[in-house]
Amino acid sequence: MELNQWKTVLIPYQYAVEELKVKFKNIRKELIDNGEYSPIEFVTGRVKKISSIIDKAKRLDIDLSEVDDKIEDIAGIRIMCQFVEDIYTVVSYIRSRKDMDVLYEKDYIKNDKSSGYRSYHVIIKYPIQTVSGVVDILAEIQIRTLSMNFWATIEHSLKYKYNHYIPSDIAQRLRKAADAAFNLDQEMSVIREEIMRAQVMFEMKSVT
Amino acid sequence: MELNQWKTVLIPYQYAVEELKVKFKNIRKELIDNGEYSPIEFVTGRVKKISSIIDKAKRLDIDLSEVDDKIEDIAGIRIMCQFVEDIYTVVSYIRSRKDMDVLYEKDYIKNDKSSGYRSYHVIIKYPIQTVSGVVDILAEIQIRTLSMNFWATIEHSLKYKYNHYIPSDIAQRLRKAADAAFNLDQEMSVIREEIMRAQVMFEMKSVT
Amino acid sequence: MELNQWKTVLIPYQYAVEELKVKFKNIRKELIDNGEYSPIEFVTGRVKKISSIIDKAKRLDIDLSEVDDKIEDIAGIRIMCQFVEDIYTVVSYIRSRKDMDVLYEKDYIKNDKSSGYRSYHVIIKYPIQTVSGVVDILAEIQIRTLSMNFWATIEHSLKYKYNHYIPSDIAQRLRKAADAAFNLDQEMSVIREEIMRAQVMFEMKSVT
Amino acid sequence: MELNQWKTVLIPYQYAVEELKVKFKNIRKELIDNGEYSPIEFVTGRVKKISSIIDKAKRLDIDLSEVDDKIEDIAGIRIMCQFVEDIYTVVSYIRSRKDMDVLYEKDYIKNDKSSGYRSYHVIIKYPIQTVSGVVDILAEIQIRTLSMNFWATIEHSLKYKYNHYIPSDIAQRLRKAADAAFNLDQEMSVIREEIMRAQVMFEMKSVT
Repeated sequence: MELNQWKTVLIPYQYAVEELKVKFKNIRKELIDNGEYSPIEFVTGRVKKISSIIDKAKRLDIDLSEVDDKIEDIAGIRIMCQFVEDIYTVVSYIRSRKDMDVLYEKDYIKNDKSSGYRSYHVIIKYPIQTVSGVVDILAEIQIRTLSMNFWATIEHSLKYKYNHYIPSDIAQRLRKAADAAFNLDQEMSVIREEIMRAQVMFEMKSVT
Repeated sequence: MELNQWKTVLIPYQYAVEELKVKFKNIRKELIDNGEYSPIEFVTGRVKKISSIIDKAKRLDIDLSEVDDKIEDIAGIRIMCQFVEDIYTVVSYIRSRKDMDVLYEKDYIKNDKSSGYRSYHVIIKYPIQTVSGVVDILAEIQIRTLSMNFWATIEHSLKYKYNHYIPSDIAQRLRKAADAAFNLDQEMSVIREEIMRAQVMFEMKSVT
Repeated sequence: MELNQWKTVLIPYQYAVEELKVKFKNIRKELIDNGEYSPIEFVTGRVKKISSIIDKAKRLDIDLSEVDDKIEDIAGIRIMCQFVEDIYTVVSYIRSRKDMDVLYEKDYIKNDKSSGYRSYHVIIKYPIQTVSGVVDILAEIQIRTLSMNFWATIEHSLKYKYNHYIPSDIAQRLRKAADAAFNLDQEMSVIREEIMRAQVMFEMKSVT
Repeated sequence: MELNQWKTVLIPYQYAVEELKVKFKNIRKELIDNGEYSPIEFVTGRVKKISSIIDKAKRLDIDLSEVDDKIEDIAGIRIMCQFVEDIYTVVSYIRSRKDMDVLYEKDYIKNDKSSGYRSYHVIIKYPIQTVSGVVDILAEIQIRTLSMNFWATIEHSLKYKYNHYIPSDIAQRLRKAADAAFNLDQEMSVIREEIMRAQVMFEMKSVT
């Protein structure tokens, strides 16, 4: 495919990323405006770079005419949460929406990758209205805590530097850091429960 | 209604304005990325202020429980075009979309108001996914040229200053200015046709 | 120069455009927050494209090593006003600022170009703090009414299409449209004075 | 002070936050455009809420006429870094700038607070050009890693809930979490050094 063709192919994915970003940011806004707790801390999104799509197609032996169906993260949304528990709340929101269809889910929190990677992935089908009609596209939503995200950002830049083959001693260090990050999350979740318990006690006292 | 209740009522309208802004801006982006002419120059949007909703309800004798159904511009989108002809292209785009339903249209260009006001209004029904479910809301899309917009902005601030009763001499001046603005638009449209004719001639010559 | 070198050269200009946009938008905000009239309606900015810089250097016979000193619109800011009078208020604000130096001014409103072009240009020197130190750069601020801007946008796209040589019949039409646009501005200015007179009368009545 | 007076007082602080955000984001952009590593990951900023200023003035027994001089975080900028080492690079950038003056610094990383709070604070004097002239204002720049920020966000919401008096068992847990966060940072710094060492080895090999 030529550069111009790629641009045309990627237009609906750009649409999708922008619309989905607005929609997930609005969940946060709606909850906060209603005086409720938002499980969503912030949202980012991106369309995969053409060079990365081509690389991935080669690595997975996918014909370029099939990337629309077989590469599911061309449109990528990332949702950051404060606590691990919030991730599952966000997943339940996504499942209940009428404007997107969940195709499947991967729980890399309960089943973390050998690298130490943790996140929850939801693959959706999402309809996009272009000037010439409606197209259904795939999008990947990654949901993770701030510390999972911190770790993943660093792993990503290392993978990039080492062209996917991180030396084993660094990989081991990285694995250790992933566990430290996850311990931090769990430490934070304990405090979260304390907060909630304290709040309930406080409200009970106020009523009496 | 209390302020807090109003805030809750207005949440889906805020959603709608943001989603619609993204969608109409994306039409422009898509066309330009495809090397085509965009009839959309820029897009703005706003949710009507609570005080303005209450004023309008009073003026039109609408009960506050019915504003959702009877005030159709709580969510407002404004699309600016370079040429009058572009307005009708944008209307045809809106009619063909599957993600919104056109309820009715008002052509204040062919039938300008006595004040001199010109614009094309499309009232749509648009589904919004909130945390607690889907709601259908009304939105008004105003489509106008840059000079219609210029005039309308000034008329709006005058209406505001004079509390809807503009003194007749100023109203007359304003009417004259509206016609001057429309003449400018028509002068520009003539040039537009010249451009297109010149381009066609140029391309015919290139072929021979 | 290579693409990478150009990128490096243009960095401080990008800085300048962003800082100046923030600063002029803030003038508007400050006045409105203080309940005063803002002569600034909106502000845009851009760094000149590399290809346009090279074209201009060729056309004006400027060596590429001298573009920093001799092409003064690499950083360009455009300020839109509602009324012609507002333009001169904005100019006086710029002159009084301590964070930029006015080098010279061109009043293309009192002396419009033969094409019909009208705008007020102010060329400033502006200090930019980069990672490696402070550099002084040139920037051009164009101040115009909304209808001058409308006209200039169309002239620009015609110039682009015809590669700077607009056919004389179209140029004549364009000149006529420029005058129509300027008449519209003057019609609006008359109303502006009516508004102000009406306001003063209104306030005098309120006092008695 | 009345609400309107507060608004007027806060205008230059809003200016400052916006200008400083642009300036620190541009450092990141400049470095990345030059193909260099950016010690700045992202930048946020805010003007302190009026209610928080009044609370702080009461708590510290400051007269409201003196808040400009005595409350130094009315304008607040927060700079997030990936690694602890990056924080000190950012501090050195701030010290060398000509467009702001460092008044003093507090290193809460080497000397963390008893709560577990870690960050580097730089208090600057920054000139702001308003419509009526130049004013010098104070601003606080907080520089921290992503995990310090994660912790601080949670501590902040707890402080807010408990009105500055966090129960001692939760405070203890929080202190423990702060250390876990700092351990994570140090684990990451070790990897950072490994990367750098690996890179140097790689480049040495390439040369031979």
